Amino acid sequence: MTQFKPTERTQVRRLPARASYDSETVYPILDEGFICHVGFVVDGQPYVIPTAYGRAGDVLYIHGSSASRMLRTLTEGADVCVTVTLLDGLVLARAAFHHSMNYRSVVILGRAKVIEGREEKLRALEILTEHIVRGRWKDVRHPTDLELKATTVLALPLAEVSAKIRTGPPKDDEEDYQLSIWAGVLPLPVTPSAPIADPRLTEGIETPSYVRNYFR
Amino acid sequence: MTQFKPTERTQVRRLPARASYDSETVYPILDEGFICHVGFVVDGQPYVIPTAYGRAGDVLYIHGSSASRMLRTLTEGADVCVTVTLLDGLVLARAAFHHSMNYRSVVILGRAKVIEGREEKLRALEILTEHIVRGRWKDVRHPTDLELKATTVLALPLAEVSAKIRTGPPKDDEEDYQLSIWAGVLPLPVTPSAPIADPRLTEGIETPSYVRNYFR
Repeated sequence: MTQFKPTERTQVRRLPARASYDSETVYPILDEGFICHVGFVVDGQPYVIPTAYGRAGDVLYIHGSSASRMLRTLTEGADVCVTVTLLDGLVLARAAFHHSMNYRSVVILGRAKVIEGREEKLRALEILTEHIVRGRWKDVRHPTDLELKATTVLALPLAEVSAKIRTGPPKDDEEDYQLSIWAGVLPLPVTPSAPIADPRLTEGIETPSYVRNYFR
Repeated sequence: MTQFKPTERTQVRRLPARASYDSETVYPILDEGFICHVGFVVDGQPYVIPTAYGRAGDVLYIHGSSASRMLRTLTEGADVCVTVTLLDGLVLARAAFHHSMNYRSVVILGRAKVIEGREEKLRALEILTEHIVRGRWKDVRHPTDLELKATTVLALPLAEVSAKIRTGPPKDDEEDYQLSIWAGVLPLPVTPSAPIADPRLTEGIETPSYVRNYFR
């Protein structure tokens, strides 16, 4: 287990009891999610862009078109914040004030490095693909040199990291528990529905088990 | 319908065919979601924090503890980016390069204003609560003056806004369609499961229909 050192920037001040700074808490959240929100600054203006990611060890990989503003900015070594949020459910308290959500989130600060070498780049793309659909990489047509060139792959070290988690029932003020108001949690899981085959799929190709039995 | 004017900052440059700038596209995305990622800058460092929101007309409301760094920063009139992302499914192409996701996202830039008046603040909290669970506000114990004081409510004008949407099957290179590789879309809807009553719920209180039949 890695114990991340909380910094002035990652220390959770609001509801610190919800905070964690160790890899045993952080990595399962990162491994269950696959969409992050990337924050970066251009001319003083923050931007927040959703994108896919993958994790291996203490590195988070993101990728995209070399032409995108986000990738260009991060390639230049800009300060970045990557946030992953898993929403688990709505928390309905008796008091409006105590309504909340159950969630698990991770905030990563740092600067990304460009993955340059062909083999390292391919390996990072494999990690990204497998992070999202385990079992997929061996089946697909791998990137050509041209495709590799059009793709920027970035590695963000998992060093300045915090997690924040809320679980469990609502917490109302003691005097409100007697009120005749329903309270509880509405779980909101992401549940895969039936795969939709490409209309141009060649006849006779079966849906792979990693798609049929997809779960996170 | 409002036509938002794309600015230098909101104009989508990557895959511009996926972009929209009108309220008929943007508002349904904002109304289906209820978690946004708020980007702001402190000492040059971007931060991205997930939080709940509500919308009414051309205003997005967010709220939180007056003590939080995010709320304090935004209260000071900092430039903000609020992003809402709805993930619809995984897009599995024949080529690794063409793997993608179906999503609908909205990016809002601007500066938030603090809601000061008691009535206006209560109204904004009602909008926030109803945005997340329609029908809830009439049932709950409303905020006290002390609770109102502890809560900062911000209004962000929906003016500098863009949406980006991907739908439909994978798009492979023409020569790859003949490959014996399964391709298609795996839908990943958020599906409410059975509500979990608070263990301290007074006996005889029924689960409200807006919880039993929750959908977005």
